[in-house]
Parts: sequence; structure tokens; C-alpha cells
Amino acid sequence: MAVIPVELAGRPYDVLVGRGLTDDVGGLAAQFLRKQTVAVAADVNARRHHGDRLARSLTAAGKQIAWFDVASGEQSKSWEELQRLTAWLLELEVERGDHVFALGGGVVGDLTGFACSILKRGCGFVQMPTTLLAQVDSSVGGKTAINTATGKNLIGAFHQPSLVLADTDSLKTLPAREMRAGYAEVIKYGILGDRAFFDWCENNGSRVVGGEDDALESAVSQSVAAKARIVAQDERETSGVRALLNLGHTFGHALEAETGYCDTLLHGEAVALGMVLAARYSARLGLISAPDAERVTAAIASAGLPTAVAAAGVSCRGTRLVDHMRHDKKMDAGTLPFILLRSIGAAFIARDVSLHDVAAFMDEQLAGT
Amino acid sequence: MAVIPVELAGRPYDVLVGRGLTDDVGGLAAQFLRKQTVAVAADVNARRHHGDRLARSLTAAGKQIAWFDVASGEQSKSWEELQRLTAWLLELEVERGDHVFALGGGVVGDLTGFACSILKRGCGFVQMPTTLLAQVDSSVGGKTAINTATGKNLIGAFHQPSLVLADTDSLKTLPAREMRAGYAEVIKYGILGDRAFFDWCENNGSRVVGGEDDALESAVSQSVAAKARIVAQDERETSGVRALLNLGHTFGHALEAETGYCDTLLHGEAVALGMVLAARYSARLGLISAPDAERVTAAIASAGLPTAVAAAGVSCRGTRLVDHMRHDKKMDAGTLPFILLRSIGAAFIARDVSLHDVAAFMDEQLAGT
Repeated sequence: MAVIPVELAGRPYDVLVGRGLTDDVGGLAAQFLRKQTVAVAADVNARRHHGDRLARSLTAAGKQIAWFDVASGEQSKSWEELQRLTAWLLELEVERGDHVFALGGGVVGDLTGFACSILKRGCGFVQMPTTLLAQVDSSVGGKTAINTATGKNLIGAFHQPSLVLADTDSLKTLPAREMRAGYAEVIKYGILGDRAFFDWCENNGSRVVGGEDDALESAVSQSVAAKARIVAQDERETSGVRALLNLGHTFGHALEAETGYCDTLLHGEAVALGMVLAARYSARLGLISAPDAERVTAAIASAGLPTAVAAAGVSCRGTRLVDHMRHDKKMDAGTLPFILLRSIGAAFIARDVSLHDVAAFMDEQLAGT
Repeated sequence: MAVIPVELAGRPYDVLVGRGLTDDVGGLAAQFLRKQTVAVAADVNARRHHGDRLARSLTAAGKQIAWFDVASGEQSKSWEELQRLTAWLLELEVERGDHVFALGGGVVGDLTGFACSILKRGCGFVQMPTTLLAQVDSSVGGKTAINTATGKNLIGAFHQPSLVLADTDSLKTLPAREMRAGYAEVIKYGILGDRAFFDWCENNGSRVVGGEDDALESAVSQSVAAKARIVAQDERETSGVRALLNLGHTFGHALEAETGYCDTLLHGEAVALGMVLAARYSARLGLISAPDAERVTAAIASAGLPTAVAAAGVSCRGTRLVDHMRHDKKMDAGTLPFILLRSIGAAFIARDVSLHDVAAFMDEQLAGT
């Protein structure tokens, strides 16, 4: 088991990564179990696969679970579910000093974390991410949110968990497509800030996606460590350091908005495409070489992730995608920061990108394969 | 004009107290007006009385106002209004670096502050409190919230304003009953921590409630300074210092819950009654003398505030009020902290109060006048 500290001033916490952690939650999370009943918000699939293991572990510690079922999918990150969950937590008389557990992927983690941030102005929570995407990205760093008619994650809070338990055994039941989608966020850490890790991904990506234990543990712990370093430097995305984590996300969110945040394009797939676009746009601006952009593309393609916009089901004008970008919550007084590459392993924030030029670039990409 | 700094680490801000501030918002709040359109959420009455002055001031600074009307009353602190306000702010493309203005009493301030805390994970806001209660209490310190079916202020966030403009001229249009209700929170600062200010209130309370300019400015600035000192020591109510501000509130909230948070008992009236009860209960426990408890009662009564529970429209068993207290968000693992008095001007947190004894005490009070 790897223990990765997230060093936040005043509120440090640990991310534990390893096999079988769910079987020892009673021990690992003992300090966050002060009452007899433990409130667990769970994705229905995650509960089906891992609920019994969690219940056995907590029963052994003399606890019992009150379950709150969350339907799988982005539609659960809604005002309605937020109200339903907070009403349930109030009914359960959860107090500020208590901890709510979130079992599942990013949807459950984001919804539960946000609910806990506003319940009585803030109670504690423990993340138990069961998807690769959630383990390497959304469960760490405290970004929580719901979606609205205007867009994704537009209503939310920064609220850090007290503990993250990333049980890599939970990934055994994950569909292959979701493993690949999660892997997009793994290789992202290499592309944005760690050339050696990118090289490692080139060599081990298929083993990670294939679910080989050692590769998986290594990928998750290296990814979490990378994210923890960044979050510790810039918790609330004010200095620009944390913004680097948005590599691929500005392009990706526009593609997700266009496809309606549905199964046509999973978030990780959109990020994969977004990183290809960021690399190619960086090459177009002369920041990196065309071969480097294609090397990023090849590494993403070799994990079975999409790299061509049209083939991924997006067909529209570039201006339409740019219109989606204009609603990005990072828009700042008329400009939108883009994360671009100076080299593989060195991303930066470009604040002078022309949205007009981006639209033209997207038209070329949409016309391509 | 008095300038009272709220010294929060990393995010200090000023509370300005004085006459006619609304007429110079364009100048006083210039640094928070980066765009041409200023989003203002306003209580409909506050807008009717002060909207023109605010509009003139902002027009002179080259700005225009986008108004969001909020109906008066606690029912606006709802999930529905929160969704309506955030959707409007998203539609207006308010960004993280922007500031939303809240014009009105505690309802508008709490709703708007909470909306701003969750909009894109947090944008800025400026409080323009137009009631005495909001000027001396709710607009300062960053507590924001909405109500739910379970109780008041149970869903919310700590989110500090960037500036508070307390224009004492705004109080000229306030109904007398609301002036008295706001005065409860003024004298509270004396009772909980400042004997000299309590003495000042005994001598000047009727002048404050009567709206005499010098008394009003002095009362508001002394109250804000008292709150600022406390909030700076304990922003998130973790050390116990800030909890002292809840003097009268545990009793008061139970009375409000019983009367249905309606016009029978305004919040300030409930706090006034709650302080009388806290003082009398302190006397019952032998912490202060009975004459001191009655001196507190007399000072509150002389401002025209209610001091007898039954006369204020509450008729039920003490156990029922204690049941309301059990849902207080300060409940902590079965115990409820009460703010009691060691003397006038010296409150403390009592963590060993028996709710059974409180019920018996309330039965006596309910049977009294």
C-alpha cells in the first residue's frame, strides 16, 4: 500500500493506494467513524460490486451502514440529487464533525463532496473511488460540483476529503472502456509535467489498461503523487499551477458539451482527444514539433483512446465548439486560458490564445480523419 | 464614515459604516466593478427605497445594473431561489473574478452570499445591508445559507464578502419593529463580551431604536467592530470563540422553529427572548445573580422587545422546544453547546447542559408571564 500525503496548510490528508483496502476500511478509516452508523453514498454499480466487502469490513469494526443509492451517470450530478442527498443526511442527523463516505466514481465523489461542503456549512467526507478516473483525478484535490443546464461543474465548491482510499482491486470489475477513459488522466500527468512518467506510460500503458496489478498500482500512485504536488501548491487554482491539470480539458469540455455529456464520448475520452488537440495546436503555434504532437497522439491511440474528432462522433463547425468554450468557468474578462505544451512534459498556461484561431484549427481537425 | 477592518488571514476586508454610502458606491466599491454591468440581487423593498440612489451612483461611474429581485422574507432562502439566482448569474456570465452586489437584509445577503460561494466554485460579492440586523450581524463574517424543510440555515457555506457597505441612511425607511429586532443583535455584543457597551446600550438603546443618527452610527460601528474581532479569531467557528455570537440563538431558534419562522416572531425578537432565557437559565444554574438576569431582561424590554415567551405567541411544552434544539446544527455527538453568562459582559460555552433540565426550565418560563 502506498501512502501519499496531500500537504494542504492546516488540513493535510492521505491518499492510500493499494489492493484490498475496502476489506479494511474499519481499520484504515477508524478515526473517521465516530458514530455507530456510517452514511455511505454509493453508485449503484459500485455498491453491487463492492458493497458487501465494505459492509463486512465495517461490521467487523462494530459499525453499520446507512446506504444512499446514486444512479450511475452524469445526470446524478444535479440539483435534484443534491437536494435529495442533503435531505437524507439531515434526516440521518449527520453533524459537522461526522464523515460521509462516497463509494463510486467521479459522479458520486463530486456529488457527495459538494453535499458535505454545504451540509451545516461543511461536514467531513471520505472518498472511496472505484474507477480509474476517480482514483487518479477526481477523488483527490477537493473539487466538487454538480452540473446545470448551462454546463458541467458550474455549481460547486472546493472541499477536501479527510481521507481517500483508492483500492485498486475495485478496478477489476470496471468495463474496459472506462479503464481506457481513466488512463487518459494518467498519461496526462506525464504530458503536462513529467517526461519520465510519459516514457513509462508509453511502455506500460497497455498493461495499465489491461489491469495488471503492478502496473495499475504504480500508475495510480504516481498519478496521485503528481496531483497532490500540484494541489498542495495551488489549492484553489489561483496561482496558475493547478490550472495545468486542465490540459486537454478546455477542448475536451467543448466536445462533451457538443455531444451532450453522454455515452458517445466519456469524459476521459474527451480529455484524451483534448490532449491530442492541445498538442497539435501547440505544434500549429510552433511551440512543439509536429513529430512530438504525433508522439503524444500515438501514445494516446495505443491505449485504445480516440484521437480523431470526427471519428469520435463530433460533427459541427469549429465556431460552435468555441461557443461552448466561451461558457467555460475559467473565462476571465473575455479571455480563456489554454494549457499548451512547450515540450512533452512541460505544459504552460497560454492567456493570449485567439478563439477565432482555435475555431479555424478545429475546422481543420473536424475535416480530418 | 467608520472603516472597520475584518482581519482574516489572506482575505481581509473592510466594513464601511456611515450615512449616505449608497450615493457613492461607484467610488467606494470601484475596485469591485471591473465590468460594465453590475449584477445586483435586491430585496424588492430595499430596491424600491434605495434602488434609485444605487443606480445613480453606479451610472455616474459608467456602470449599469442588472437587477435580480428577491421577495422579502425567509421563504426566499430556499433551494428554488438559490437555483433561480445561480441560473441568472450563469446566464449573465458572471465569472470567478467578478463581484455580485447584495442589497437588502439578511435574507438577500445570505442567499446571495451562498450563491456566490458555489457559482463556479466561488465568485466575489459585496454586501449592502439595509436593515439594522443585517448591518450589525449577518452581513459581516461570511456565514451564508438557505433553509430547508428540516430547519433554518442548514445548507450553506462560509464565504466572506469583499466589502460591506453599511449605509445607516438606509435604516430611515425601516419599520420600527425591524429596528427593534435588529437592536437585539446590538445589545447582544454588550451582554456577551463588553460590559461598557452594555452600559452604553442601557443609556442609548431607545435613541438607537428611534433612529437618531449619532446613536445609530455608533451602535452599528461598535457592533461591527465587536463581530469583526470575534470572526478574525475564529472564522469557521472551530475554536469556540465565534460560538459566543450564538448567545440567545439556541433558545431563539427553538422558538422560531415552533412559531414557524413567521411574522409572529422575527429573528431578532427570538434572539431577544433567547438572551433573556439564557440569562435566566444562567441565574438558575447560579452562574449570575437573579438581579443581573433581570437587568438584562429590563434592558431588552426597554427597547420594546419581547421578554416573555408566552406573550410572544409561543405555547407548547418545554420538551417540544428541546426537540427543536436537537436539530440544531451545532449538535455534536449528542450534546448541544449553550452560551451562558458568568456575568453581564462575559459569556462562555457550556457543553454540559442537560436538555432535560432545559425542558423543565422552559416549562416554568412558558407557564410564567
